[in-house]
Amino acid sequence: MSGGGVSRGVDVGLSAFDFPAWCRSHLECVEQALSDWVGQDAPHDLGQAMRYAVLDGGKRLRPLLVRAAQEAVQGLPEASLRAACSVELIHAYSLVHDDMPCMDNDVLRRGKPTVHVQFGEAGALLAGDALQALAFELLTPDDGSVPDAMQAVLCRLLARAAGSEGMAGGQAIDLASVGKVLSEEQLRRMHRLKTGALLQGSVMMGAACGAVDEPARQALCRYGAAVGLAFQVVDDILDVVADSSTLGKTAGKDAAQDKPTYVSLLGLERSRRHAAELLEEAEKALAESGLADTRALLALARMVVERSH
Amino acid sequence: MSGGGVSRGVDVGLSAFDFPAWCRSHLECVEQALSDWVGQDAPHDLGQAMRYAVLDGGKRLRPLLVRAAQEAVQGLPEASLRAACSVELIHAYSLVHDDMPCMDNDVLRRGKPTVHVQFGEAGALLAGDALQALAFELLTPDDGSVPDAMQAVLCRLLARAAGSEGMAGGQAIDLASVGKVLSEEQLRRMHRLKTGALLQGSVMMGAACGAVDEPARQALCRYGAAVGLAFQVVDDILDVVADSSTLGKTAGKDAAQDKPTYVSLLGLERSRRHAAELLEEAEKALAESGLADTRALLALARMVVERSH
Repeated sequence: MSGGGVSRGVDVGLSAFDFPAWCRSHLECVEQALSDWVGQDAPHDLGQAMRYAVLDGGKRLRPLLVRAAQEAVQGLPEASLRAACSVELIHAYSLVHDDMPCMDNDVLRRGKPTVHVQFGEAGALLAGDALQALAFELLTPDDGSVPDAMQAVLCRLLARAAGSEGMAGGQAIDLASVGKVLSEEQLRRMHRLKTGALLQGSVMMGAACGAVDEPARQALCRYGAAVGLAFQVVDDILDVVADSSTLGKTAGKDAAQDKPTYVSLLGLERSRRHAAELLEEAEKALAESGLADTRALLALARMVVERSH
Repeated sequence: MSGGGVSRGVDVGLSAFDFPAWCRSHLECVEQALSDWVGQDAPHDLGQAMRYAVLDGGKRLRPLLVRAAQEAVQGLPEASLRAACSVELIHAYSLVHDDMPCMDNDVLRRGKPTVHVQFGEAGALLAGDALQALAFELLTPDDGSVPDAMQAVLCRLLARAAGSEGMAGGQAIDLASVGKVLSEEQLRRMHRLKTGALLQGSVMMGAACGAVDEPARQALCRYGAAVGLAFQVVDDILDVVADSSTLGKTAGKDAAQDKPTYVSLLGLERSRRHAAELLEEAEKALAESGLADTRALLALARMVVERSH
């Protein structure tokens, strides 16, 4: 326990671990890799649109989850850097397509005009498509840096997390749910797919960068599920309580679009309690994992629940 | 050489090989696999839209190229069936997104209303996204049917063929070229990426389903490049000479949209001669490959150049 003011740790239980420094170091690494790998050789506007969609923005929560899980299993850093960037590309492409006029029709994202505003709708459609392909390209280098068998597992995890039984499936439920009243069970399924699958996938991809026994793998799976759902509950809360400039995107748009949310279903207080319970679940899973160093995973779970944007 | 009327082969040089029967058998296999694997468990309209985009339509040229190449290298049929379906999913998703109002705004495809007409623009956008993810999911089964190292190579080839230095890159050049005069060099680059990359990728994925020596691999690479470009030259010719009902899509739309084509650049006769030259290149590459049985690859190259739709 760190009680004194000299500790640079963020919270009790994290004692000697300097989470802000850990984040800075990994973010620097991920930003550099994304800048090196995204859209450099793409023709015409395509490369620019891809870079615009990905660089200089976002919390990079998914990459950080990949890196933290890889460190927890003492996995291969080269593999996790590629995996970290690949999940971020899937996340970025989903935002580009989500923002388009035929979906959410949003003009502001991370405080900047959205990709279709900047590059036209056709340009945004293509950039999103190319980002998804690039995610799988990053996972399959032919330079021997990542063992082939690991590449296959990483592609498998990412494809499932992104596809019709993951993120894309969740978006289909979301589309079909506008103006409807969902049960908590239905809302949970939507969010487990729409945002939870890729967040949980990030954790599992990090774990796949090393050797991990089955009980630890299952514990990380539970951790990922809890953090993934907590993220969405907190997102729903922030959509109500924060303003657009803090969020970097349009606040209050769930209610404006008549979308079911945790807040509309449970109210603000119960939603907050639910987020706290999910954090406890995540912490319990880490404690049960038997892994030696889960401090970064723990700090990330707390960040997800305690964030203000 | 088969000279008599009793031969069931399609052409001289194919003698005992029954190409129509070969096609029927592989198409049956591919159609069944696509029906089993596409959109069965996707929520709401998503699964239906995915199946609508993929099933009961198309020449399945890419899957046939995969299967023919796999047979030529005596590769693993389980792997090539998955690879065949995965390239078809990438092709299908590209058509869904291409047809959308912000791209070509086409309402007719394979004689049916396009996906966005049937399922709405948001539904079409999502279905395309989910089909791309599914392509990589098909390549990465966890049932031991395809060796992990082979899965990694297949994902690598598909991601490159589909991405910003392949199909999506070609579409970006296409978008930027409307109303412009391109040189033959520029037009060739556009088509090598836009349609050539995935056709060539199909051949190379089939080859990756087995062990193949480097000279044979390079010969198949040349074959794939020639067939890929020939396909587009013939497409440009058919857009001018065929009618919509034969094509199953809107004829004459390249000229209507002021898009550069081989016919607009070279004229009809020189375009036909160019297609014939590319067929010769493909035939020469097969002859040089040293592979024992390239009859299906040969017949497919001829079909690409001699087709009427």
